Amino acid sequence: MEDQVLMLSKNTVKFIKSLHQKKYRLESGMFFVEGEKSVLEVLNSDFKTESLFATATFLDQYDSQLQTQGITAEEVSQKQLESLGQYQSNNSALALVKMKENNPFEVKGEHLILALDDVRDPGNLGTIIRIADWYGIRKLVFSPQTADFYNPKVIQSSMGSFTRVTFYYAELSQIFSQWNLPIYGAFLGGESIHELTEVQPGVLVMGNESKGISPEIEKLVDRKLTIPSFGEAESLNVAIATAVLCDNFKRLMNS
Amino acid sequence: MEDQVLMLSKNTVKFIKSLHQKKYRLESGMFFVEGEKSVLEVLNSDFKTESLFATATFLDQYDSQLQTQGITAEEVSQKQLESLGQYQSNNSALALVKMKENNPFEVKGEHLILALDDVRDPGNLGTIIRIADWYGIRKLVFSPQTADFYNPKVIQSSMGSFTRVTFYYAELSQIFSQWNLPIYGAFLGGESIHELTEVQPGVLVMGNESKGISPEIEKLVDRKLTIPSFGEAESLNVAIATAVLCDNFKRLMNS
Repeated sequence: MEDQVLMLSKNTVKFIKSLHQKKYRLESGMFFVEGEKSVLEVLNSDFKTESLFATATFLDQYDSQLQTQGITAEEVSQKQLESLGQYQSNNSALALVKMKENNPFEVKGEHLILALDDVRDPGNLGTIIRIADWYGIRKLVFSPQTADFYNPKVIQSSMGSFTRVTFYYAELSQIFSQWNLPIYGAFLGGESIHELTEVQPGVLVMGNESKGISPEIEKLVDRKLTIPSFGEAESLNVAIATAVLCDNFKRLMNS
Repeated sequence: MEDQVLMLSKNTVKFIKSLHQKKYRLESGMFFVEGEKSVLEVLNSDFKTESLFATATFLDQYDSQLQTQGITAEEVSQKQLESLGQYQSNNSALALVKMKENNPFEVKGEHLILALDDVRDPGNLGTIIRIADWYGIRKLVFSPQTADFYNPKVIQSSMGSFTRVTFYYAELSQIFSQWNLPIYGAFLGGESIHELTEVQPGVLVMGNESKGISPEIEKLVDRKLTIPSFGEAESLNVAIATAVLCDNFKRLMNS
C-alpha cells in the first residue's frame, strides 16, 4: 500500500537509474548520493542538490535543516530508495546533485597535491579521496582514464569526503609542465620513504593498479619513492600505498 | 562439447560449492583457492593441497612442477572453474586445500604481532594479511568474531599472502594475559604515532570496523595510538589504518 501512495513518476525512476552509468551522468550533468551520512554531507557542501527523495523518518528528523536550505523533498519508501540507488539497505535518503565543472584549480605550492595516473577501480578512488581528506590534501588531479569521481561506488567509498576535495581531470603531462613543482612518484625500487629527512610541497603521483605509473609520466617524476618492504608481498594496494605515503609526507612536512 | 568431455562428478561440484560457506568448511576441514597466482602460492606453501582442478593451459605450463610435487590434477574447462569458485574470470586453476589446525604460536617478543578485535569484513581481513606480509609481520591473532581466514574473499584479497602468515583464533583477553608484551591499540584520540620516538616489540590491536576496540580489550591496552588527522574525514578504513600504523612501527623499530 505504502508504495502505491508514494509513487514516483516512471520518468523520475528511469532518470535516476540512468545515472548509474557515466554516459548518462555526463549527458545530464547530474549524479546521485545516497545514505544518511553522505546525503547530509552533500547538503552541507558547495554541491548543488537539485532534488531529494527521502523517507518520512529522514524528513521528520531533518525538517528544519531542509526548510532553512530551501530544499523541497519528495517522500518515498525505503523500498523505493533501494530500487533507485545501489545500496542494499537505505532507509534515509537519495539526493540528485549537480556535477561541478571540470575546471583547473590554482596551485600555490605550499601544500601537497595528489595526482592519480589511471587509478581505475572506483572503490580505490573513493578510498583515496577519504585518505586525502584525512591528511588535509584538498587538491587532486586525475588522468582522463582514472575512474569517474561521480560513480556511485566512488561516492560511497569516500564516506562523505567527496564534498571536501577539489579535483579535475586532465592530461597529467600537460598539467605538470604548467606547474613548477617537484613531482614525487610511487614506484617499487625508488628511495625509501623512511630514509627521507625532508620533503618539499609538491605533487605525489600514484599509478594504475596493475601497471603503476605510465612511462610518459615516469619521465616527469623528480623523485621516485618506495614504501620499504620487510616481507614477501609483491605490492600493496594503491589506496593503501597512498595512505602510507601521505602519512610519511605529513610527518616530514610537520617535523 | 568441451564441457561434456571434461565432466566433474555432481558430488565434486556440490562439495566445492559448499565450501563457499563457513559451516561446510569447518565440517570438512577444507577450503578452496582460485586463480593462477594464488594457486601457485598455495602449491609452494606448507598448506596441503588435496585436489587440483585446472585448465589444459595451466596443466601444460606447470606440468613439471605438479609432477615434482606429486600432485595429480583434473582437467576442467574455464567455464567449469568459474562455476565452482567466486572469480568472474578464472582460466587457470582451483585448488582444494586442507585447513590448518587452530594452534597457538610461540611468542618470543622480538617482533610485532598483529591482533584483530572483531574485524568483520573479509576484504579488510585479506587486505590486512597482505599488509602484514609486506611489513614482515608473521604472527596474527584473531578474536573469535573476526572474519573467517578461509573465506574465499579473504583468500582473494590477501593476494597469496595468506600462505606466509601464522595465525590463530582465540579470546584476545586470555591470550594477552599469557603474553608478557606491551599492548598497543589503535584509537581515535590517543598518542600521535608521529610523535613517538621509539616502540618496543609487542602487540598491535586493531578494532572492529564500526565499534573499534571493545571495552574489554581497551582495558588491556598499554598505549593508545592515533594516526594524526590533518583534515575532516572522521576515520580511516581499518585496513588503511593498519598499514599506516605498521609502517610507523617498522620505521621506528629500524631507526
